[in-house]
Amino acid sequence: MQPNFIFIMADQLRWDYLGCTGHPHIKTPAIDALARRGVNFTRAFVQAPVCGGSRMSFYTGRYNITHGATYNNFPLRIDEKTIGDYLRPLGYRVALVGKTHFKADAEAMQRLGIDPSSRVGVFASQCGFEPYERDDGLHPDQIADPNLAYNVWLRQLGYRSKNPWHDFANSVEGENGEVLSGWSMRNARRPARVKEEHSETAYMTDRALAFIDEAGAGPWCLHLSYIKPHWPYIAPAPYHAMYRPEQVIPANRSEAEKTDPHPVMAAFMAHEESIAFSRDEVRETVIPAYMGLISQVDHHVGRVIAHLAKRGLADTTIVIVTSDHGDYLGDHWLGEKDLFHDEIVRIPLIVVDPRAEADATRGREVTDLIEAIDLAPTFLDWAEGTPEAHRLEGRSLRTFVNGSRPEDWRVAAFCDGDFALRHARRRLAVPPSRARGFMVRAARWKYVLFEDLPPQLFDLAADPRELRDLGRAAGYEDVRGEMEARLFVWLRGLKTRVTVSYEQIERRTGKAKERGYLFGVW
Amino acid sequence: MQPNFIFIMADQLRWDYLGCTGHPHIKTPAIDALARRGVNFTRAFVQAPVCGGSRMSFYTGRYNITHGATYNNFPLRIDEKTIGDYLRPLGYRVALVGKTHFKADAEAMQRLGIDPSSRVGVFASQCGFEPYERDDGLHPDQIADPNLAYNVWLRQLGYRSKNPWHDFANSVEGENGEVLSGWSMRNARRPARVKEEHSETAYMTDRALAFIDEAGAGPWCLHLSYIKPHWPYIAPAPYHAMYRPEQVIPANRSEAEKTDPHPVMAAFMAHEESIAFSRDEVRETVIPAYMGLISQVDHHVGRVIAHLAKRGLADTTIVIVTSDHGDYLGDHWLGEKDLFHDEIVRIPLIVVDPRAEADATRGREVTDLIEAIDLAPTFLDWAEGTPEAHRLEGRSLRTFVNGSRPEDWRVAAFCDGDFALRHARRRLAVPPSRARGFMVRAARWKYVLFEDLPPQLFDLAADPRELRDLGRAAGYEDVRGEMEARLFVWLRGLKTRVTVSYEQIERRTGKAKERGYLFGVW
Repeated sequence: MQPNFIFIMADQLRWDYLGCTGHPHIKTPAIDALARRGVNFTRAFVQAPVCGGSRMSFYTGRYNITHGATYNNFPLRIDEKTIGDYLRPLGYRVALVGKTHFKADAEAMQRLGIDPSSRVGVFASQCGFEPYERDDGLHPDQIADPNLAYNVWLRQLGYRSKNPWHDFANSVEGENGEVLSGWSMRNARRPARVKEEHSETAYMTDRALAFIDEAGAGPWCLHLSYIKPHWPYIAPAPYHAMYRPEQVIPANRSEAEKTDPHPVMAAFMAHEESIAFSRDEVRETVIPAYMGLISQVDHHVGRVIAHLAKRGLADTTIVIVTSDHGDYLGDHWLGEKDLFHDEIVRIPLIVVDPRAEADATRGREVTDLIEAIDLAPTFLDWAEGTPEAHRLEGRSLRTFVNGSRPEDWRVAAFCDGDFALRHARRRLAVPPSRARGFMVRAARWKYVLFEDLPPQLFDLAADPRELRDLGRAAGYEDVRGEMEARLFVWLRGLKTRVTVSYEQIERRTGKAKERGYLFGVW
Repeated sequence: MQPNFIFIMADQLRWDYLGCTGHPHIKTPAIDALARRGVNFTRAFVQAPVCGGSRMSFYTGRYNITHGATYNNFPLRIDEKTIGDYLRPLGYRVALVGKTHFKADAEAMQRLGIDPSSRVGVFASQCGFEPYERDDGLHPDQIADPNLAYNVWLRQLGYRSKNPWHDFANSVEGENGEVLSGWSMRNARRPARVKEEHSETAYMTDRALAFIDEAGAGPWCLHLSYIKPHWPYIAPAPYHAMYRPEQVIPANRSEAEKTDPHPVMAAFMAHEESIAFSRDEVRETVIPAYMGLISQVDHHVGRVIAHLAKRGLADTTIVIVTSDHGDYLGDHWLGEKDLFHDEIVRIPLIVVDPRAEADATRGREVTDLIEAIDLAPTFLDWAEGTPEAHRLEGRSLRTFVNGSRPEDWRVAAFCDGDFALRHARRRLAVPPSRARGFMVRAARWKYVLFEDLPPQLFDLAADPRELRDLGRAAGYEDVRGEMEARLFVWLRGLKTRVTVSYEQIERRTGKAKERGYLFGVW
């Protein structure tokens, strides 16, 4: 029987901000319970250090450089197949509640005559998902859709505003009742102006439960994609006050990092968010709210799990919890994301397959190197589809979940980032084509190649917190050479030949003459 | 004023089989005259050593590994833009007469709801060209289209057969009037069973002239794409007898090449076409016909040029003559193509811009490294279009044609080949994903990297005929390392990010906060 999937993503959730991944203070009982019931992949990496590229890798099962939608709002190529395109023909209803950060390639759609309002056009405009509830979660006033469903709902509840997403869900009240915007991090200690049950996280969960009720036995795949704990860092009561500054773990940074920093680091350290997060006051204000938002997500993950049980779907629904990347939060004197420290590229990944085939691994940790692109082929594997290995660059995790380890599993994980749109590029005086970093992370070493600039190298055995960049250090030439060689091999293997399957090739190899092309015959 | 383009390609025409490129015996007066009137690019290279991949590189302006249609009949991705897609919006009529070897991605078209008979569907099915006369030129009986226009025409002329392409245009008569197939190379000395003016080359030329009459002043771009001198090696009278075996240049091969050959060489040497072409009898039978076919193409190129003059279009029409790859013809003990010697990857490329801007270069040879992907951006440049440098991997040749040399011109040319469909892959026991070779050709060295196998290396200064493979030789480790480093840089620069232009990126860089995304603000 084909299982259902509930594929839960929390945006900008760091791998180390869960109870089950070792945070000393945070409360995530629901997700911790999932880890006890399933597999906790503790060395999982995204393929891009930013939402857009990373998500397109999740959804397509292909590396960032391969699918080419390397940054937020860079359209995905019209013929890239996503989880929806893979699962729908197998009988699945594949729906989205929340964020994808997908942008359609409107130019190609127009050139190819694809009507965005047609059935095909809707899927092509929604990353292959049925947009049960599409909401990318960031709605600055000047570009907010007046008909955003969440805003309409808030207005119906009496939150009167043109953009209640901002004015209520992501704003707070000051000492004198004045409205203060969540866009300013100084306001993160105060509660949102919505009740908890009217917050984005609660609303999206309600929508997910509605989908589950509607979709019934399935098979279905629901991508429940929370915007939080992503900024604006505003949590509703009581989560805004759940954590105290003393529960903020110390920043992972050293004074030495500021001495002769790597040029890309230096350029990002000069960003406003990095300067802000370098101040303890900012960390102590923001991180408790960030932690509260995570505990709130956890609470709602618990609601989903309870709902599956209530609907009799617990035994047939596979649950995945992950994120699209982390958040520097001041570590390494940085804010936001875009670079390659574990704070960004390492993600939580918990997989619960309730079926008997996975009984051997309940509560197990897997420390093998996992890539986000492994999920799409895993869904396809669970759904009993054709592997499509000529397109999918990830590998199915089903073997791990069922208690074995593929003997030829990867020995390095890859990630590549594009900072063409970031101000750092101007500071570095790099053209849009060259603002690229390529990361390879093997058992001991993490290496990042930047075009036209020195590399970064970290010895994860001696320096697991990545505080000492050996990219320009003498004595590591051989290591750097080995890591570059791995990147070279990886690039040669990118799956750009997408229109012909391996099976088709096997069938046709050496068969031209059978088809009548009698070349070379005397 | 936008010029017209006539972009002439002769399939499988070696770079060194023209008078103006140094062949001692062949007669190509029309093309030689073009070389005297324009620029002869004498170091031009294709991006794939086989029709399909090479042509898709010509048409898209992108490397073989980038566009991914790496072999014959591998569909091109639906959103790859071709010369037609670039020029049509600029007001051009862009038409095809002859071969493209393009295959549509029918699966993507179906998934995206593109009707193949719609206007958009026709362009998507014809590589972006208006199929004024599409004919890929190879029609084995069992897969020949009964309504192929050339066959219909031949039947109207009285050539009675189900497949007159084969039974007349590519067959001969034996001693006793029996019909002998051109698929057997032993029959290459005899004339085709059609009159010269009814041959494929003549017919396609007639169709080109008809297009020119119809299209008039323009602007238009006509791709006149001859199947010949591609096999079947059958020339009509008098061209079948124009050359004698004594005029066949000696095979470029050495006994040493057969001693411990590179494994890929060995696997291809075992192919039927290689075994056949290793015999002098075969070369002396086939090559005179091959040469005759080239002289016939030359004659018809002359007709096109004369027709342009007659129609008053000579001063406004830019003429390009090139080919999609060469033919081993027994050199290096090989037949056909697929590998990376100059016999295959080097092509003739003659460009005549009749306008005053190019007066400085008439009769000039340019020895810089040119890639086939340079043509698409050159057309776009001449047509005064937007460069689209985020997609196009080639560079405009207009500066060369106008008498200057871009200071930062490339110092290496690249080509990559996919032999997944060739029998050699079975012999090498390589999976479909790994049957790849990557060539880099710099001023002195040519290097070919094969996955899982040793590389090839040729010192073009000491060994211009590429008879001594230094890929496994001691003492060349540094050279091989340098060449691999070039390939690595090249791969990192492949333009997979196709949906966003550099101009869009420049406009948006660092502007997120202006759009209301106030991250990192205290």
